[in-house]
Amino acid sequence: MRRKELISEIRRKKTFLIVGLDPDLDRLPNGIEKTPAGVLAFCKAIIDSTAVHCVGYKLNVAFFEALGVAGFRCMKEVKDHIPSTHLIIADAKRGDIGNSSKMYAKTFFDKFQFDALTVAPYMGKDSVEAFLDYEDRWTILLGLTSNKGSFDFQNLKLEDGSRLFESVLIKSKGWGTADNLMYVIGATKPEEFQGIRGILPEHFLLVPGVGAQGGDLAAICKYGMNSDVGLLINSSRSIIFASDNTDFADAARNEAASISQRMAEFI
Amino acid sequence: MRRKELISEIRRKKTFLIVGLDPDLDRLPNGIEKTPAGVLAFCKAIIDSTAVHCVGYKLNVAFFEALGVAGFRCMKEVKDHIPSTHLIIADAKRGDIGNSSKMYAKTFFDKFQFDALTVAPYMGKDSVEAFLDYEDRWTILLGLTSNKGSFDFQNLKLEDGSRLFESVLIKSKGWGTADNLMYVIGATKPEEFQGIRGILPEHFLLVPGVGAQGGDLAAICKYGMNSDVGLLINSSRSIIFASDNTDFADAARNEAASISQRMAEFI
Repeated sequence: MRRKELISEIRRKKTFLIVGLDPDLDRLPNGIEKTPAGVLAFCKAIIDSTAVHCVGYKLNVAFFEALGVAGFRCMKEVKDHIPSTHLIIADAKRGDIGNSSKMYAKTFFDKFQFDALTVAPYMGKDSVEAFLDYEDRWTILLGLTSNKGSFDFQNLKLEDGSRLFESVLIKSKGWGTADNLMYVIGATKPEEFQGIRGILPEHFLLVPGVGAQGGDLAAICKYGMNSDVGLLINSSRSIIFASDNTDFADAARNEAASISQRMAEFI
Repeated sequence: MRRKELISEIRRKKTFLIVGLDPDLDRLPNGIEKTPAGVLAFCKAIIDSTAVHCVGYKLNVAFFEALGVAGFRCMKEVKDHIPSTHLIIADAKRGDIGNSSKMYAKTFFDKFQFDALTVAPYMGKDSVEAFLDYEDRWTILLGLTSNKGSFDFQNLKLEDGSRLFESVLIKSKGWGTADNLMYVIGATKPEEFQGIRGILPEHFLLVPGVGAQGGDLAAICKYGMNSDVGLLINSSRSIIFASDNTDFADAARNEAASISQRMAEFI
């Protein structure tokens, strides 16, 4: 799914919600088998019930990979169940020397046909290029993540006074375009978005870490939105595990609808 | 395989060579099918012919993953073919928030039973801890890689005058011990090893990027060795693709033997 189409879907549905599929076996609702077949049934039910209230899905590859060989088959079937009107992201945080990154790009873009893949920046330009060579897909580079560990390195001050993640944004934005490059920007401090928009006025930002209550949504929109909306907010557990009972799909629909209703006010 | 055993194997065999298995379909020798079955046969033949001349194998996960579902089964069979006297590394460069890293650790340490996994540091401590929780496995953190892109971020000067990769080494070395934490340190500038040994006197360093001719071996040993040897030098393509003909296994054996012979002089 390309930029124009994505923006038009956001405007049509009045939401910029991405539903994160992190099928943790230990948290699957009652009545769902803790097997690849159970995960597939669970994800399909979540997709069917939330599709009208979101513009995309993010599959957390770690949880599928952990199911072994059958998990990869399951990931493909979940992916194939998502309507083509939705952006489909593989959250895999890959990145390696050019040769190997090329293989990862093949896997996720050619074989699995994902629209987008998250990529880690530590190894620099030649580790990211192989993904950006796919001009009709999205490379979503880690900028500032929402976990506690983001303070260990991403926030380190550089010699020139900037912080590492800012240098990542500044240096990497020229490697692709706003049509095939997005960034993961955590929502820990919404006011950070102001500085980030100074560096990246046009790019879409994929934002994890907006709490189950979505308290920061207004601030993130205030500082992070651009004229094309420019934000994709991911919510995983608060939606997919909204109920641990047989009504889980309805509960997920309600939670997604409620988040999207709040989002509509800002579009 | 634990540290004591690894050191004893290095001393017994007088080599610290790791053979990298990067089964690129486009480079498989004549007579080998470009299929998962072909990759399996190729890797088994390489393992059988080189095992006496190395102390471990590094499987480049990108090349197996690119074969799809069957590739994961193939990776498991290749892994299972390697004798338990050898260190078995999954080169996957994983790293995500704690929850997801835990899943990746499960996949590679519990399901596939690898001895070691390469991990990317950008997301900080809580993205690495889930791997280090396995005290009887090795987490191999990216420090300084050997690709051109390592100059983009890893070599950035920080406010305190150190470079980013040095800060990664200093901060992370306390997250594990020299018994379950190693580092990837590229061999682009052998003299760098002196400063790195100042920070990490004890840890094993996994060194890629020693050219097919091994010209830098003496310098790397001079600056990088410690009293337990402390180095693992990975060579992939120069060994496994030493011949593109049916004599590929013999050619791989000769190349591994020749590298190990040079290594023996330094042990």
